[in-house]
Amino acid sequence: MLKKITIAVDAMGGDNSPEKIVKGISLHSEEDQNVHYKIFGDLKKIKEVIPKSLTTNSYEIIHTNDEVKSTDSPLSAARSKNSSMWLAVDSVQNKESDIVISAGNTGAFFVIAKLNLEMIENIDKPALAGLWPNKNGINIVLDLGASIDCSEKNLVDFGIMGSALFKALFPKEDPKVAILNIGSEEIKGHEIIKNAFEILNLNRNPNFKFNGYIEGNEIMDGLSNVIITDGFTGNVALKTAEGTANFITSELKKAMTNNLLGKLSSILNINNLNKFKKRLDPRLYDGAILLGLDSAVVKSHGSSDYIGFANSLQLCTKIISGNLIDKIKQSID
Amino acid sequence: MLKKITIAVDAMGGDNSPEKIVKGISLHSEEDQNVHYKIFGDLKKIKEVIPKSLTTNSYEIIHTNDEVKSTDSPLSAARSKNSSMWLAVDSVQNKESDIVISAGNTGAFFVIAKLNLEMIENIDKPALAGLWPNKNGINIVLDLGASIDCSEKNLVDFGIMGSALFKALFPKEDPKVAILNIGSEEIKGHEIIKNAFEILNLNRNPNFKFNGYIEGNEIMDGLSNVIITDGFTGNVALKTAEGTANFITSELKKAMTNNLLGKLSSILNINNLNKFKKRLDPRLYDGAILLGLDSAVVKSHGSSDYIGFANSLQLCTKIISGNLIDKIKQSID
Repeated sequence: MLKKITIAVDAMGGDNSPEKIVKGISLHSEEDQNVHYKIFGDLKKIKEVIPKSLTTNSYEIIHTNDEVKSTDSPLSAARSKNSSMWLAVDSVQNKESDIVISAGNTGAFFVIAKLNLEMIENIDKPALAGLWPNKNGINIVLDLGASIDCSEKNLVDFGIMGSALFKALFPKEDPKVAILNIGSEEIKGHEIIKNAFEILNLNRNPNFKFNGYIEGNEIMDGLSNVIITDGFTGNVALKTAEGTANFITSELKKAMTNNLLGKLSSILNINNLNKFKKRLDPRLYDGAILLGLDSAVVKSHGSSDYIGFANSLQLCTKIISGNLIDKIKQSID
Repeated sequence: MLKKITIAVDAMGGDNSPEKIVKGISLHSEEDQNVHYKIFGDLKKIKEVIPKSLTTNSYEIIHTNDEVKSTDSPLSAARSKNSSMWLAVDSVQNKESDIVISAGNTGAFFVIAKLNLEMIENIDKPALAGLWPNKNGINIVLDLGASIDCSEKNLVDFGIMGSALFKALFPKEDPKVAILNIGSEEIKGHEIIKNAFEILNLNRNPNFKFNGYIEGNEIMDGLSNVIITDGFTGNVALKTAEGTANFITSELKKAMTNNLLGKLSSILNINNLNKFKKRLDPRLYDGAILLGLDSAVVKSHGSSDYIGFANSLQLCTKIISGNLIDKIKQSID
């Protein structure tokens, strides 16, 4: 039998917590019996909502008195060593858990993770990696906002860490790394980007293929599957894509149900429309990974529901089964 | 009678030129009889495709021996003083035309414009402004790639120029300016952005309302209508939005015509679907404006067709009727 994976879960973060968290755990445990959940949070509140279907020996609840609120500043949140978030991270640091997940306050989670966990040797800055749909499947974009100002060394490290993550999640595919830029010609872009291009181009890393530059409209074309950028640009790109998707789907909905004939034909086409909806369901891409620390740290979307949270838990198990941290360390050497 | 507007048109740039250019002129002239077109390019090629419907006294053709190719580097393109692009820009510099438009090589067009035209006093860097659809109509995003590295002064100038452009195009609406950032809190983002926020916040400009920061997902929510950012970030945001829109519409098409029932119901709903398509038609938003120079310079999308080009010509007339350059100068003082 495989060694069980232990996931430290902050039960008190994100909308509708802890209910969505324990419902997500329950859903995930139906699909994957090889996981032990260490659930950190308010014992009473958690017990009230824990589904009976969840096998009692698959989890334990560690009662915590305090919780980080979404409105807390990262630094004030980091002052309490008794929050569910802090103790969940602590559990990874103590090697009691393999990975930690929270759907709570992003800034606070990252600060607490950085305070408690070591950086991987030779990595100077962390990166937040996210999953994006593309024409052929899924790719990884990093950094999405952990490191605003990046040097060429940071960007190169993001390429190494991103391809290790890609390989851990999709073992059968080969990572193809590209730098996000504003043109494909070598003369375009900032000095830092050009230097990163130079390094990746000259010192080929055997763990991934380097595809050079891509532009924003190529992120989803599926030709590259690890896209590197600084945290400012990546965050703007991610949110612009989200905004565009919301805008288009709301315009589509308006147009398609504009009149009776529209409503009727949409009902006729409901199966196909549902397929479309499912393909773009943000819950499928839930879970962003903070890379660069000696342990894996997963942030689930605060506004996602229990299905999204269950998907983030699945991401956690893939990261551990795929030996993400070892892969990064081997690729850095 | 109103004074005629004279537009200098580079007929040799962009896909299917000069045919799409003269067809675009013809379409535009049907809607607007108050324009004189100075068409720069190969006389023989233009004459072959010019529609009979175009009134002969509404245009003149200025024969040019040379043209800028899409593959030319900006600097090599700028060496020929006999290209249709150069001479069209020259016509604005000589005050023979009110505004210049090209669908050709963007980099070359900007270099030639900057070589020939003066910067507006107190503006240090130009910005490329584009039109984006939003929930309430259209907004302006700048810079989309003219100035990669921007100071706080540049960003503030972009706000001033962008709101002057918005007011010129939509005289009945009030410009609401926002800075694109990665969070709405004042502590987020680069130093340069924070300084620009500070300046716009303390020295309120009477010509626009300052809305503070917005994130990428708010570009299209319609609450702000002038979004300022550096050219690198703006270009990535624009192209990411384009890529997302293409990805979603191609997934939608796939899903909706997946089977016979899907195809049938889509045919039933064709009117509504066409309305949706029209709302997002990129040709509606064709034409980007290079701001900061003493004359207005409009770049039409190279891959757009004659309808897109006609829309760019309409943008030209609105810019001149709206006294864009004067509005910028008044707002700078």
